[in-house]
Amino acid sequence: MTQSFKERRAALIALGLDLTPEMVAGTVSLTAPDIDPAIYDAVAVTKDLSYGAHERHVLDVYAPVAASGAERPVLVYVHGGGFVRGAKDSDQTPYFKNIGSWAVQQGWVAVAINYRLAPEFAYPSGAEDVAAAMTWVIDHIGEYGGDATKVFLCGQSAGSMHVADYVVGHGGYGPHGRALAGAAIVSCLYDVGRATRKDMHLAYWGADVSAWPERGTLGGLIDTDLPLLCTVSEFDEPEFQDHATQFAAEWHARKGGFAPLHLLYSQNHLTPVYAIGSPWDAFGPLLSRFIDANA
Amino acid sequence: MTQSFKERRAALIALGLDLTPEMVAGTVSLTAPDIDPAIYDAVAVTKDLSYGAHERHVLDVYAPVAASGAERPVLVYVHGGGFVRGAKDSDQTPYFKNIGSWAVQQGWVAVAINYRLAPEFAYPSGAEDVAAAMTWVIDHIGEYGGDATKVFLCGQSAGSMHVADYVVGHGGYGPHGRALAGAAIVSCLYDVGRATRKDMHLAYWGADVSAWPERGTLGGLIDTDLPLLCTVSEFDEPEFQDHATQFAAEWHARKGGFAPLHLLYSQNHLTPVYAIGSPWDAFGPLLSRFIDANA
Repeated sequence: MTQSFKERRAALIALGLDLTPEMVAGTVSLTAPDIDPAIYDAVAVTKDLSYGAHERHVLDVYAPVAASGAERPVLVYVHGGGFVRGAKDSDQTPYFKNIGSWAVQQGWVAVAINYRLAPEFAYPSGAEDVAAAMTWVIDHIGEYGGDATKVFLCGQSAGSMHVADYVVGHGGYGPHGRALAGAAIVSCLYDVGRATRKDMHLAYWGADVSAWPERGTLGGLIDTDLPLLCTVSEFDEPEFQDHATQFAAEWHARKGGFAPLHLLYSQNHLTPVYAIGSPWDAFGPLLSRFIDANA
Repeated sequence: MTQSFKERRAALIALGLDLTPEMVAGTVSLTAPDIDPAIYDAVAVTKDLSYGAHERHVLDVYAPVAASGAERPVLVYVHGGGFVRGAKDSDQTPYFKNIGSWAVQQGWVAVAINYRLAPEFAYPSGAEDVAAAMTWVIDHIGEYGGDATKVFLCGQSAGSMHVADYVVGHGGYGPHGRALAGAAIVSCLYDVGRATRKDMHLAYWGADVSAWPERGTLGGLIDTDLPLLCTVSEFDEPEFQDHATQFAAEWHARKGGFAPLHLLYSQNHLTPVYAIGSPWDAFGPLLSRFIDANA
């Protein structure tokens, strides 16, 4: 961490808001070196456990090396990648071993999942896979020190939309029901009917855009009783800022009060999850308090 | 700090959202004991400097005991109190010696001002007093180690409305012009035309409510080029949550993007400023980054 906050902010601004390959690579280059290696200490990772029939139906469990009891809150992380790419972990970057490991340092157990991708698999395959992974978690997380009554889902970007779909029931639930203590939704498009007709959206939500409105989660999230922690980043793409504003406006109109929607200062679309475990982390402390409050 | 975050949150919820005398006293009792005495170390306070003719035209300066140069950012704090009460400091509570002292620990110089109160003095007396205090600050803060080109105004509740009025020019500026590097606005009613007709509002904005709409700051804040840091608290009174939502919606409609509006998790109307210097502080770290980014 050799930058000042002002320099760091300027570097993020220079990368722009558009999620080009260069912007993504630049964000990784900016963020990855600052992750504290200490977050990986005493963390046991159990990789590629199967939670379904497809090769993408695999998950990793992060637990303390010396786990005892089954009382830890559980964080289940659902990666982003525009519905068409992304993974629970990587050989090239710390993502998202950083989240699983950092979660263990918070006193939790963590699970990071892969799920089927578009265009081969379309809506609501992501939410169905979240439901299958949740079933696995409820059945097995006690073996790793996790408390199955304190499970929190967290997703970013496309992952946040799979989480939102799961919360509102678009993918159905498994035999345990919703089985959630809370959901964290990082940079989400809530009103699918208003989403841009870009290729990755068409790949997941389908070529028939007349079906998109019912695939939105805005109303369901406002109506749910589940504790929510939603975020939008200061340097998020305009579409995400647009949907976040709409979420706040409709939440207030329907339910009163300010939506559980947090603006992340000096963060872009990726840094809320890429900076976890680094001194630039803004989302992690908020997630930690949210889980403390609701576990 | 003997409470867990969950216990602290429950204690705040138990106090309720309404700003009754009991709620205010309960918030002070909850928050004041956790302020770290170390924030007062090596802080020199110069009290009751006059910036105008009225007895309320006084301000306190917080500077390092061993100040050198004139390069520190300057935080000017404007207290709340429903237009009709409140003060820059108190013999009974740490408020707001906590803010001035904490600011010095951040590497800044701070100024806390009194201003004339309603009903004797009505709109725009608060903003006029902010303007007079700003003139004093620009003229004199260099003597205390402050940089007059890096002045940030911060107000809470009624104080935030005086700050907002100053930013949009409702009180006029002094000989130095606006002379601000940024403004922090904590729990504000932006659209005065929609404000409740409660006694303290009538006392300041006047009995003629037809004049209230033009006294709002919503449009002026959206149009300004000044860096803003606005907040609303999760446990703010509903009226403040209402105005904050409207601010976000109108900002997006007129300017695009998400408004510079931060939801403060597990904070009530008072704690953003009452918890500064304590482990429960949520607003301070944000203000610190905002000033780092814009100084």
